[in-house]
Amino acid sequence: MVMKVYGTVLSTATMRIFAALYEKDLEFEFVPIDMPAGEHKKEHFLALNPFGQVPAFEDGDLKLFESRAVTQHIAHVFADEGTPLICEGKSMATVGVWMEVEAQQFEPLALKLRREFLYKPRSGVATDAAVVEESEAKLAKVLDVYEARLSQSKYLGCDCFTLADLHPLPTMTTLMGTPVRKLFDARPKLSAWLADISARPAWAKVLAMRNQQ
Amino acid sequence: MVMKVYGTVLSTATMRIFAALYEKDLEFEFVPIDMPAGEHKKEHFLALNPFGQVPAFEDGDLKLFESRAVTQHIAHVFADEGTPLICEGKSMATVGVWMEVEAQQFEPLALKLRREFLYKPRSGVATDAAVVEESEAKLAKVLDVYEARLSQSKYLGCDCFTLADLHPLPTMTTLMGTPVRKLFDARPKLSAWLADISARPAWAKVLAMRNQQ
Repeated sequence: MVMKVYGTVLSTATMRIFAALYEKDLEFEFVPIDMPAGEHKKEHFLALNPFGQVPAFEDGDLKLFESRAVTQHIAHVFADEGTPLICEGKSMATVGVWMEVEAQQFEPLALKLRREFLYKPRSGVATDAAVVEESEAKLAKVLDVYEARLSQSKYLGCDCFTLADLHPLPTMTTLMGTPVRKLFDARPKLSAWLADISARPAWAKVLAMRNQQ
Repeated sequence: MVMKVYGTVLSTATMRIFAALYEKDLEFEFVPIDMPAGEHKKEHFLALNPFGQVPAFEDGDLKLFESRAVTQHIAHVFADEGTPLICEGKSMATVGVWMEVEAQQFEPLALKLRREFLYKPRSGVATDAAVVEESEAKLAKVLDVYEARLSQSKYLGCDCFTLADLHPLPTMTTLMGTPVRKLFDARPKLSAWLADISARPAWAKVLAMRNQQ
């Protein structure tokens, strides 16, 4: 039975799963969820993800949610197909560290800034300059740590592309269309790494899905 | 070379690593970090954790940070010692889902409530009733999902104790000493599971370290 991804092409968490599947060159079915109609809060979707959030994922009788758990499932179960995405032994511990850095340090600040620069203006709500200033200052310090890491290592986890690089890519791509871009442009190693991973064929396929919307 | 844990016995993230090491019955050295003196922001500590947060971890020449990455390293590298903490095949995907639920759904709300009920009063700052009300309402919904899961499964990830259960234990234990306890007491499956995992000998060793402080 073909794997199914439930979500929306505009959801960065859903894009994370698409990217992992394309890196592995795996067949899957995309089931769009009508979020404006509240489909993610209806019973049939809550049976897939009890938190009522996209994405959700099915692999036969295995039902999963939380995008980072899904990408890790894909990387481990299809270890021998396409891009490895994980690595062996001690390097995997460092891949794990950088997956946590994305989830704990980068993403919470990135989502605050996305809200201020994208979601609020779309709803006719003014951007809060104090929130932007505080969040940008904190994000700048986090990106300094990325810059230092990428000055020592070609990719975040080890010397090859892994989930540690894939996980932040969707949200970073979204931020490139906001004034937060300046924080990336000011950091040469970070910018070069982001340009490199953004040019991957798997990511081009994810963006093509989004652009067909 | 013996593994080293840098942190404080009062830090829930540090306790997460202690619990994993005790479950595996592994020898380690605890290196206390003097946070009131700002030791976590000094150069020698920033070389271990560039974010200046406890804990940090050393296993020979491997330096790690982010507690959940460290527990996963311990669980994978010492897979055959002590409590397994991870499982094989498809069940591991579900363990992964529940590790993400802790990190993404439970912990952010739990830390907000800990701040209101423990940190603010200690600093002589009044608890914000509106923040408490909003966070408790959101946490109640998250705990409903835990209750439903624990009505179907003895442990969160599968039918044995894994990192999915270990990760939330330190912060949940802290909340038991606050009014948030009522949200747990109102959910029988959740309460029984928490009583069960709190009674583990490894956890008693972690609490003994804290109580010796």
